[in-house]
Amino acid sequence: MNQDIEHAPRDAVILLSGGLDSATVLAMAQAQGFRCHALSISYGQRHVAELEAARALAEQAGCLSYRRIEMDMRLIGGSALTDPAIEVPTTPSDDIPITYVPARNTVFLSLAMGLAEVLGAQDLFIGVNAVDYSGYPDCRPAFLEQFQKLSQLATKAGVESGQGLRIHAPLLHMSKGEIIRQGIALGVDYAATVSCYQADDQGRACGVCDSCRLRQEGFVQAGVNDPTRYISAST
Amino acid sequence: MNQDIEHAPRDAVILLSGGLDSATVLAMAQAQGFRCHALSISYGQRHVAELEAARALAEQAGCLSYRRIEMDMRLIGGSALTDPAIEVPTTPSDDIPITYVPARNTVFLSLAMGLAEVLGAQDLFIGVNAVDYSGYPDCRPAFLEQFQKLSQLATKAGVESGQGLRIHAPLLHMSKGEIIRQGIALGVDYAATVSCYQADDQGRACGVCDSCRLRQEGFVQAGVNDPTRYISAST
Repeated sequence: MNQDIEHAPRDAVILLSGGLDSATVLAMAQAQGFRCHALSISYGQRHVAELEAARALAEQAGCLSYRRIEMDMRLIGGSALTDPAIEVPTTPSDDIPITYVPARNTVFLSLAMGLAEVLGAQDLFIGVNAVDYSGYPDCRPAFLEQFQKLSQLATKAGVESGQGLRIHAPLLHMSKGEIIRQGIALGVDYAATVSCYQADDQGRACGVCDSCRLRQEGFVQAGVNDPTRYISAST
Repeated sequence: MNQDIEHAPRDAVILLSGGLDSATVLAMAQAQGFRCHALSISYGQRHVAELEAARALAEQAGCLSYRRIEMDMRLIGGSALTDPAIEVPTTPSDDIPITYVPARNTVFLSLAMGLAEVLGAQDLFIGVNAVDYSGYPDCRPAFLEQFQKLSQLATKAGVESGQGLRIHAPLLHMSKGEIIRQGIALGVDYAATVSCYQADDQGRACGVCDSCRLRQEGFVQAGVNDPTRYISAST
């Protein structure tokens, strides 16, 4: 009896950006038997093509639902991703990079937590990575653990059950090459993902920003052909 | 020298809804010498008149800046405030009321945290109250303490300084009557605030929802004339 309950499919909320990482996370959640609800957040980022990719990926993967919340973080600014006056860097930085968007992952997790509460889901998946984004404070294990604690106090479900959400960050300690190998094994179509910080409206990548660089290196590490469509290659 | 630094005016972010509570909080923050940046969040709530009130209050109070972030939480739903299919209750509930918006205060604090980081502010004011809203999980001291801990891990400023934000919730243990008396003493113009969950587009209150009821009781407790404009009174 207990076993049946244990094995019943459970609902999960997946933060899906349309990039390589979250597409892999979605495939991993589904491989674990979760019924997935995808959530994208349009926060005023330069790379809106990513969001179109997210919708297509959710549909392709057979998610139970797809939602896109519009929320303009350009009013807050302070990042190359949300402030047109700040240029996207093309060289790696030892410091916290200017592409860091203040409080972004906290805002994203909060919205996902709200959706999980409404759906009655206890599991939440996020594609953060502490290897490639070591400079981002909200990509670290300590941050995620603290958010998990917060979720127990922040929601009706948490208060009533005495338990917080289970926050799954399966990519946390994986290299980009490992992520890609995992995704390929699970059938992820990386041609349908967009990682570039300044992709054009057709989803073609610039090939020079931090995110493009990490992605390119990842395909090399994985020993897999890079299916990315680049702006320069098509002109 | 140190004394000068200690006494220099500090910037603070104030979550300003346009309601009675946050208007009082703004006045209290200013009375403490903070230079205030007001932040309103339009989350798809029924009571948009509240937001117009927020802008006017921020201007009237001489805030350094006013921002309104649009973010449609109707896509998440699950609350009478964001789902038109759920009616706003007019009788008190012992349980967590249906006007509770899942994860709302976590989302609001996250956005305020992002703004504080960009502005270089370390102080954040929120008008939550554990007396009147005892049913809302995210109006409790334990929740706020946990968020303060999270802010130390979530932001660049927190990581670099080893310190989180100072989250001020000065109304936490005050009754509505006490809040109103405090606000009157500080010169708050309550006629300019809107509390009603379903105010009309001119900011006139229904007089029967939970929020109207608490507000009415507050003016009675405070022994102050209620300046609220009611829909019924003007027809």
